Amino acid sequence: MYPGIGGSEGKLRELRHDPLRRRWVIVSTERSRRPSDYLGGRDREPPLAGECFFCAGHEEETPAELWALRPDGSSPDGPGWQVRVVPNKYPALRRDLRPARRAEGPWDMIEGYGAHEVVVESPDHGADLADAETPAVQRVLFAYRERMRVMYADPAVRYVQVFRNHRVEAGASVRHPHSQLIATPIIPETLEAEYHTTANHYLLKERCLLCDMLAYERAVGRRLVADYGDFVVLAPYASGAPYELLILPALHHSDFTAADDAAMSRLARVLGDTLGRLKRLLSDPPYNYFLHTGPPPGSGPRPGYWEHLPHAFHWHLELVPRLGVWGGFEWGTAIPINQTSPEEAAEQLREGGKENG
Amino acid sequence: MYPGIGGSEGKLRELRHDPLRRRWVIVSTERSRRPSDYLGGRDREPPLAGECFFCAGHEEETPAELWALRPDGSSPDGPGWQVRVVPNKYPALRRDLRPARRAEGPWDMIEGYGAHEVVVESPDHGADLADAETPAVQRVLFAYRERMRVMYADPAVRYVQVFRNHRVEAGASVRHPHSQLIATPIIPETLEAEYHTTANHYLLKERCLLCDMLAYERAVGRRLVADYGDFVVLAPYASGAPYELLILPALHHSDFTAADDAAMSRLARVLGDTLGRLKRLLSDPPYNYFLHTGPPPGSGPRPGYWEHLPHAFHWHLELVPRLGVWGGFEWGTAIPINQTSPEEAAEQLREGGKENG
Repeated sequence: MYPGIGGSEGKLRELRHDPLRRRWVIVSTERSRRPSDYLGGRDREPPLAGECFFCAGHEEETPAELWALRPDGSSPDGPGWQVRVVPNKYPALRRDLRPARRAEGPWDMIEGYGAHEVVVESPDHGADLADAETPAVQRVLFAYRERMRVMYADPAVRYVQVFRNHRVEAGASVRHPHSQLIATPIIPETLEAEYHTTANHYLLKERCLLCDMLAYERAVGRRLVADYGDFVVLAPYASGAPYELLILPALHHSDFTAADDAAMSRLARVLGDTLGRLKRLLSDPPYNYFLHTGPPPGSGPRPGYWEHLPHAFHWHLELVPRLGVWGGFEWGTAIPINQTSPEEAAEQLREGGKENG
Repeated sequence: MYPGIGGSEGKLRELRHDPLRRRWVIVSTERSRRPSDYLGGRDREPPLAGECFFCAGHEEETPAELWALRPDGSSPDGPGWQVRVVPNKYPALRRDLRPARRAEGPWDMIEGYGAHEVVVESPDHGADLADAETPAVQRVLFAYRERMRVMYADPAVRYVQVFRNHRVEAGASVRHPHSQLIATPIIPETLEAEYHTTANHYLLKERCLLCDMLAYERAVGRRLVADYGDFVVLAPYASGAPYELLILPALHHSDFTAADDAAMSRLARVLGDTLGRLKRLLSDPPYNYFLHTGPPPGSGPRPGYWEHLPHAFHWHLELVPRLGVWGGFEWGTAIPINQTSPEEAAEQLREGGKENG
């Protein structure tokens, strides 16, 4: 069961900044967990087909839909949809707070303003992007682009993170195929680093760092998984996890939300194909993917490097199987230990997963 | 079985730097994993008492010991030891490589020079630091300090990360109680950030950031778990995980390796006590802990801020239960989502775990 939408009364929802570690965290106690909830959670089973609030016929069990691809004339929250976007019922951040900032002793705090939405990718509980036809993948990409455009229209939103968790080991609590978007009132640390680095590279060289990397990888070839001409799939040189992949447009594009329908269609083929390779080679592994995009023109307050990002930043999708867990070394240092070289991973993935296929 | 020590022939062991993400990764293929190894690994059971290479009587199954607390006159790699340090048989980094640096296209690479050691905390397979008497915990801390001193004597070593993984969900592959140390030829990203931040704070204020934080937490009280006078245990304001804890000396100390035996004895009591609280409250949860320390005097090449670190940096131990996994949002942004406020966690832990106790 998808429990009732809770109000935010008495709950804590804050972004808190640690200057020592230089990171933001979200403290969000909507789901108010006691110690016993964490323990039970270790073995808890997600809802099955038929009991699932994301399945066709259960539309009334989710919050009202925000967007859907559905036949002309059909009603919101009724049947017939192909892709459906609804608010997350336990949002990490929400729009009914003010993005107020204040100091708390040596720390900084922002009220948990933002948005958290779920893209239900199919009415079918057992569907999987790795097996889907290109048009079905394309519809999911349309939903990402559409909701990102809406979220970025809010001047308090500084970043929109699109992501997908596949299987429990990758953080999925629900089996029904879905992706999520979270809009934050800050630029996350990872994006801040990527924006800064690419802007510095551009200022120095008037070239895009990712275009440089891509040219090198095409020349070397060993880490290329597939080259579709307009999109490239590669195993990054400094992969932090086994079979980690990067999907990026071959031509320079900063802003994913500006991509046209033709590009979405091409990306859909590349993404579906790549998920299929991983599924065959690694027997349907847990994975996460997430999109890193430059800011749309006109969005948000602008640090000094902002004006360079359209030339400097190159959007990309990172796709990372979760085949192990981090230990104390990785958490303490942020240095991942990867036991499969990207060269070996690329070779196996180029062969399309023959080993287990 | 602890398989034979492999040579490094034909294996890859490199630190690779990604300028986009600004992070180092270790690619270390000693254990040469194929896709099927990862899949089997999901359910693989660690060795049991009696079959375990870390148990008393199995000393010949590990590489030769580097250090041990054992009765006068007893032989290395023989019985009678209380704590024993051996090389990790599958080291992430190793001493028989040169810390050579070179460019690889747009990236940087260093050969995987370093060290990776295991502190076997007890001859008893079923021992647990959370239940141990203070002297037993103290012996483990002595091993950390001793091996750190030896590792830091190598001028190519820039950081030594001490850490402990408890249970499979926290990255432990062996149940026998043990900790690890990894010495790296670079300053890890997390430490670089902490060193930089604390040095900047010191330059501005001539005060230590952690001393400031500690004074604030003592004044506020809500996030204090226990105040032992010379050591404090608190739930950090910007906790990224439920029941995350910080243990730090109340007086300013930068370098853990300079701590005297009396301080080790006091810390042993605090650490054992804190692990006991977590064990009672959360029913023996998986956890990691890791030590962040300033560099010993005289170590390593020095960035500009180095000379300030003895005044600026304050060593601390982070202790983090692993009650959930990161999803695509956390991996994509480095912003953790924490569903239990540190104020609530501290309150429950102050009560000593009564809920499940």
